[in-house]
Order: sequence, then structure tokens, then C-alpha cells
Amino acid sequence: VVFEITILGSNSASFAFNRHHTAQVVNVNQNLYLIDCGEGTQMRLAKFKIKHNRINHIFISHLHGDHYLGLIGLMLTMHLQGREQDLYIFGPKGLDEILTLHLKHSETELNYAVHFETLNMNERQVLIDTEELEIASFPVEHRLPCAGFVFEEKPKKRKLLREKLSGNLSSAQLKALKEGEDVIDHDGTIYAATDVTLEPKKSRKYAYCADTRYTEAILPYINEADIIYHEATFLEDMRDRAIQTYHSTAAQAGTLALKARVGMLLIGHFSSRYRELDSTLEEAKSIFQNTELAIEGKVFSISE
Amino acid sequence: VVFEITILGSNSASFAFNRHHTAQVVNVNQNLYLIDCGEGTQMRLAKFKIKHNRINHIFISHLHGDHYLGLIGLMLTMHLQGREQDLYIFGPKGLDEILTLHLKHSETELNYAVHFETLNMNERQVLIDTEELEIASFPVEHRLPCAGFVFEEKPKKRKLLREKLSGNLSSAQLKALKEGEDVIDHDGTIYAATDVTLEPKKSRKYAYCADTRYTEAILPYINEADIIYHEATFLEDMRDRAIQTYHSTAAQAGTLALKARVGMLLIGHFSSRYRELDSTLEEAKSIFQNTELAIEGKVFSISE
Repeated sequence: VVFEITILGSNSASFAFNRHHTAQVVNVNQNLYLIDCGEGTQMRLAKFKIKHNRINHIFISHLHGDHYLGLIGLMLTMHLQGREQDLYIFGPKGLDEILTLHLKHSETELNYAVHFETLNMNERQVLIDTEELEIASFPVEHRLPCAGFVFEEKPKKRKLLREKLSGNLSSAQLKALKEGEDVIDHDGTIYAATDVTLEPKKSRKYAYCADTRYTEAILPYINEADIIYHEATFLEDMRDRAIQTYHSTAAQAGTLALKARVGMLLIGHFSSRYRELDSTLEEAKSIFQNTELAIEGKVFSISE
Repeated sequence: VVFEITILGSNSASFAFNRHHTAQVVNVNQNLYLIDCGEGTQMRLAKFKIKHNRINHIFISHLHGDHYLGLIGLMLTMHLQGREQDLYIFGPKGLDEILTLHLKHSETELNYAVHFETLNMNERQVLIDTEELEIASFPVEHRLPCAGFVFEEKPKKRKLLREKLSGNLSSAQLKALKEGEDVIDHDGTIYAATDVTLEPKKSRKYAYCADTRYTEAILPYINEADIIYHEATFLEDMRDRAIQTYHSTAAQAGTLALKARVGMLLIGHFSSRYRELDSTLEEAKSIFQNTELAIEGKVFSISE
């Protein structure tokens, strides 16, 4: 089952050096989730051959232009290309008002339904809860109300070793074994779950920490994730500027990854003052070795 | 003195085949005027090395997304990059409300002043009137209220032939000669304007006809322009669809250019159903020979 993140853009504020504004697609089991939607996201989707009609859920972290200005255009393109299935948008208070005003003035009645849910910016909030996956938002520290998003697979079932089982077990008993419970058949034979099943596959986890000042308050939400994306707008020599603008340095991103004991750190939201990103990557790696630049077009997979 | 049009995008509705949404820059004597501002216009400006801080006037024809969704992003980039000089925006009713709402929710107070003028969609309206240039809007026929824009140089002065003049003439008399009036100096010598001056250079004219159904009502506004841009969304075999959606065919664009006796026709706003544009160009050329495709990156100059 696929669990991968495709970067569509990761430059902060202004477009520069052919680096576009923030957007990423998370693919979990062929369900596509779009996180943030900077200007031109529909063009990046086309470039990287990701069909927009496969996206049913969009998450907007906050209302700075570089994180949402592509949303209206994407929605209109979906409309013009005949989308009919519902679209779910999770975003800050005010985003629905903006979308509604655009649609009103263009006299557009979308031929698909939009379900808008306002994010709670004060505490962790479960947004999507299926049998396989939970997606939640969590508060970060930015100039505007801003949320991170965490994607986590539900605990998985143990795998039955068919050759160690008799035909005497009911489906309820098989289910119990998969949950890790021991069972006994009508001949009195005991089946210990640890003997007749394999450990479940691990539950994978990805956290997108949005735009944020360095804060350890988010550790509980991102703890032990396989991958986190954390912004690294500045280098350490501009730490004061980072604090003042509610952004982070590459070193701070590395520190947070280390404290959260994550598997891999993706850094992005690069300032337009940096043409080359070598120093940014090196600074984060000096603290957390397994760091990668979130460069558009790159795909990061979490294996099962 | 330069008078040229740079195409930044000319695809209709959806982004397709790497053709972007509508935007053009008109450069008259190094003053840059932006007409329409589809999503990603700031990226196209960067690509074609046009500095956005040289643009002081923006004209938005109507509120379909492919004509204005790049405006907010461009304004925010101007802000982030320290713009201080005033920005003048001419657009349909409602655009100011949209811009204001975006700025409110991003808690942005622009560090430059924006002057917004609502377009009159019922009659020709002079928007800019300087000694050298007049820019006016004119009504076209589209689903939404929509304006075209016409750029026309003011009548120019005659050029003095210094070698045919004596030093006896006052500056007021020289000015009169340039206006075409004859003068007499204090020795009684008569200077006929036609003898001592050259004909003025012609006044150049460019008309942008926006999105419109074929209508001869716009002929008075675009008449004898050196260049007009007219949409050619469809081919003639889809004329019914063009009428129904308030768009034009390539043949209709050619017909209008012919009737308006213009110098050159630029066609654009291509439907995403056409991967190749050869047929579109051929169809227009079969009626009006001097036609060119408005392909992004192309520059069309009007010589003096």
C-alpha cells in the first residue's frame, strides 16, 4: 500500500529561482490529499502528471497568499473539466468567505458540492477518520492562525499464518487472532496469537508542520513520525529574524526532528534570499542527518 | 519611442499544453501597463524578465478566473519586495471587494497605496489621459460585464526644420508652427508651417478586445488600430458554441479585423480542446492575412 508525499512547491512568500509556492500531495493507498495550494498549483499538478480529479480533500494551513492563492483557480478548473464528485476543504476561518465571494462575482455555480470545514486553531482536531487512516490538524505558532496536519495509519491487524490454523475456527475467532487475542477451538486446542500470526505491519505517519516558529509544543503531535516536513525559511545567522517573523531556521528544524525522534526530515519554505540551498541543507543535517530538501517534483515514500 | 505588446498568456479557461491564462504587458514609452492577470502572471513576468515594479497600472477586463486570479499574488509580491509607489487598478465592480477581503484575512496592510477605479461597462470611458497617451475602456459582449481597452497616442506635433528658421521667432511662435499654424516674424517674413516643419509622426493605436462574442458594436472603438488583439476561442465549425458561450471563432476575429481596417490582428484565448493552433491561425488568415497567434513570450512592436 502506497504512502508517499509529492512536493509541488516549497518557496516562501515570493516566487524565485523557479521555485514555486507551497503545495504537496500526500498519497495514501491511492487516495490523494492536497496540503496547501499556492498560486500555480494546478500547473504543477499538470507538470507532475497528477490528475486533479483524483483529489477529494484539500487542507489549507493558513491564509498567507503563498499557501492558498491557487485554490480558487484549481476549483474552477475542476468545474470546467466536469468534476462531479464532492470536494472537502479544511481551512482557516475566512477561507470559505473568500471562495464564496470569488464564485459570486464570476457568477459560477460549481457542478460539484464543496464541503468546507473550519479548522480549530487551538487544539488537535481529527479531520478524517477511516478504518485505515486518521488525518488531524494541530496548532503551530505563526503570525496568522495556522495549522499543521498529521497523517497516521490506524493500528494494523496481525497477519494469519494459514498453515498453522485448523479449519475449526470461526470467522469471529480468526478476527480475534488478528487482533492479538488467543482462542480455543471446539476440540480444546489453544491457538496463541503470537504462534499463529505475524506481527502487524507498522502504522506509518507523516506530519506537515506548516509555517511555524520553533516550538516544542508540537512534539506530541509529530512524535516518531516516519517523515515530517518542517519549514526552514532562514539560516541560523538570521535566527532573530526567524523569531520576529514567526518562521524557523534550518538548525531549528533539525533540532525539532531530533527531539521528535522522526525517521526523516523534509525542509522547505525557503526564503527567496537563498539562490542555492546547500547551506540550508547542511545546517539542518549538522543536527539531524537524515534531512532532505523539499524540492518540487521530488517524491518521498514511506515503505510498509 | 517604444510601443509594444508582450504576451504573457493566452489560453482560455484551463491551463493546457503549457499555455497559461490571459495577461499582456503594453509598453508605451517605457511605461508598462498590465492587461488582465491570470493565475501565475507573476511567474510569467519573471520568466520574460519584466520587472513588476515597473508596472503602475493594471486593467482587468472581467471576473472570470482566467483573467484576474493572479492579481492578488502579484500585489502581495510587490508588497513583500518593498514596493512603495502607488498602484492603479481598473476593474469590474466586485474586484475591489475581493482584493479587500484577501488582504483582510491575511492581515496585510500594503506598504503602497492602491487606487481602484470601477469600470463603466456600458460606454466608452477614458481611464488615463496624459499629454502623450489616452487609455480607454469600451464595452464588449460577454457572459459577465466585460471591457476591452484601447491605447492611443495623442496627435503628435509637427517637427521643426531648424535650418529653415531664423532666430527671430519666439518660443510661442515655434510652438504654433509645431501645431501647424503659420507665423510671421518682426521683419515681416512669413513662415508657413508646411514649409518649415515636417508632418507629425502618426499616432499609434492598440486595442485589446477581451473576451467577447462577435459584435460590430466595437468597431468605432478599435477602428484603424495598428494592432488589435481579438479572442479566437473556437474554430468556425463550433460557431454555435461560440455564440452560446459569448466567445468568438477565428474567422469572426478575422472578419472584425477586416471591417475595422486594422494593421495587424493578434488572436488568442485558445480553447484547451486545440493542442495545435495551426487551424486557428489559418482560419483567421483566410479572412485577414496579417494575423499572428498571441503566444506567450512573443513581443509585437508598432514602429513610429
